Amino acid sequence: MFIKGLIFKEIGNYPEIGEIEADLLLDDITVSLKAAALNHRDVWITKGQYAGIQTPCILGSDGAGMVNDKRVLIQPGFDWGSDDRFQSRQYSILGMPRNGTFANIVNISAKNIVNMPDHLSFEEGAALPLAGLTAWRALMTQGKLLKGQKLLITGIGGGVALASLKFAVHLGAEVYVTSGSRDKIDKAIVLGAVGGANYKDLNFISELKALAGHFDVILDSAGGPDFGSYLKLCRPGGKIVVYGGTQGKVEIVPQHLYWSQVSIIGSTMGTPEEFADMITFIDQHKLKPVIDSIIPLSEYKDGFEKMNNGSQFGKIVFTI
Amino acid sequence: MFIKGLIFKEIGNYPEIGEIEADLLLDDITVSLKAAALNHRDVWITKGQYAGIQTPCILGSDGAGMVNDKRVLIQPGFDWGSDDRFQSRQYSILGMPRNGTFANIVNISAKNIVNMPDHLSFEEGAALPLAGLTAWRALMTQGKLLKGQKLLITGIGGGVALASLKFAVHLGAEVYVTSGSRDKIDKAIVLGAVGGANYKDLNFISELKALAGHFDVILDSAGGPDFGSYLKLCRPGGKIVVYGGTQGKVEIVPQHLYWSQVSIIGSTMGTPEEFADMITFIDQHKLKPVIDSIIPLSEYKDGFEKMNNGSQFGKIVFTI
Repeated sequence: MFIKGLIFKEIGNYPEIGEIEADLLLDDITVSLKAAALNHRDVWITKGQYAGIQTPCILGSDGAGMVNDKRVLIQPGFDWGSDDRFQSRQYSILGMPRNGTFANIVNISAKNIVNMPDHLSFEEGAALPLAGLTAWRALMTQGKLLKGQKLLITGIGGGVALASLKFAVHLGAEVYVTSGSRDKIDKAIVLGAVGGANYKDLNFISELKALAGHFDVILDSAGGPDFGSYLKLCRPGGKIVVYGGTQGKVEIVPQHLYWSQVSIIGSTMGTPEEFADMITFIDQHKLKPVIDSIIPLSEYKDGFEKMNNGSQFGKIVFTI
Repeated sequence: MFIKGLIFKEIGNYPEIGEIEADLLLDDITVSLKAAALNHRDVWITKGQYAGIQTPCILGSDGAGMVNDKRVLIQPGFDWGSDDRFQSRQYSILGMPRNGTFANIVNISAKNIVNMPDHLSFEEGAALPLAGLTAWRALMTQGKLLKGQKLLITGIGGGVALASLKFAVHLGAEVYVTSGSRDKIDKAIVLGAVGGANYKDLNFISELKALAGHFDVILDSAGGPDFGSYLKLCRPGGKIVVYGGTQGKVEIVPQHLYWSQVSIIGSTMGTPEEFADMITFIDQHKLKPVIDSIIPLSEYKDGFEKMNNGSQFGKIVFTI
């Protein structure tokens, strides 16, 4: 069986449109893809900034499409394993090493296919899986965010941060954001955030304290020099959930942790059950993801470039 | 009412034996003290390294004694508040600002008095409260340590570390330790630890990995330059519980946190319910604390000095 799609051949180069031969495994079903969404992961893989890179393969972890006459969404994780607290060693994500969603079709286990909520278009559906699942676990399982609590989301604009914003607002939390761009903060306020601060301002930590007091949960994927100050923004018993570290090492004063009984909790991806819970929540709240732009798959290079610059606000979706 | 004891009068000086006038509050009971134990807290207060210092007052958080003909132990925390996850702003610890246990008597709320387990002497009982409570919450509530799991206790020798060792061994965990002294590691092995490594060895992290593999829980009160490496010693979903930071700032690579779903959890003291659970456990297992030395209260300066040098292995107890 041949699949047409974006073939990743060599680190340092964009993938190329082409064909690849692929097997249909025993419990695989073929999904005819209608839309796919880009993730940082895809960009990092093309740059070689990811563990265990194998070529050639089709990239893409997020996809929505049809199986016969059924609209479906793909859960992008495989072999989580038996312990909810962490993924097994066998765990992998769709789109390298397995051929992913930047293609006309994807062959995938029936277990990874769920029904698409009726209120979503293919593009909206494709924008959800990886970012939504990461946000859901980070907020709900690890952060244990509750209605009425205060949440700070750093670096609003990316897919996980915006999915978190949507989930938290619909949960009834009081959400604040940071960004390096006032425009993104304003857009987040339109989406339901109470306020925010620009992390390029030297006083942004004090601004946040004046604005919100202390936070029950802080969600961060940057790390770097600002992280240590987040501990002072936590209320006693508060949690900082970490799902990335693009700005590198963090420095922490242990005294800021123990007297306040604060936790720093690592989180990545999520279990199939968490994925199902997220879809139920999205369905109940008729929630839609934030989409930055929808472009034809043939213009994928524009999408890769935009994500690389970090100028997007929401998901970059390809129509197929 | 006058109380005879070690009066702390001035930062930078040892307390002095003397008398102080003290009130008996409405629900206070007078405990006739038979033994008291020294904590780092007492040493830090005399040096001015503690928040909210008030003088004059009698130091000492740990005490055991008699109320009429009943042998009792003192729970040293006040006003924890209604939330198990963290102490209230009103929370305080016996022995500054309230007059503590380095005295002939202590006036204390009936709620803070518990029956002493029969198998303990006054000296053994006095060695338990503050260190035991800190260890209990850190291990059981925050670390959620289970039978069969692997635990690393850094800096074995102090009261909390040794109470943790005792609790974990009796729980059925597999315990490893670090110390700057081979002698202390050997003593820990006699007490039930499986093994240990000297943190003065450059390769001690690799030694621990070779010895034990990965840990479910790591208990640390040092912080400092070694801390970042502990993340690599955690199994996926593992926890580092932090109850102090004597070696200062720590540096962390966020990537070591999120992919492994590891948590760093701050912990201090514990609730009255945790204290009661700890006493029940101690009673059931006929557990005794590790005591470094028992000296008359009049020779308290030797105790302060020993703790300041860090040469002790177990609690330093005063007989009264």
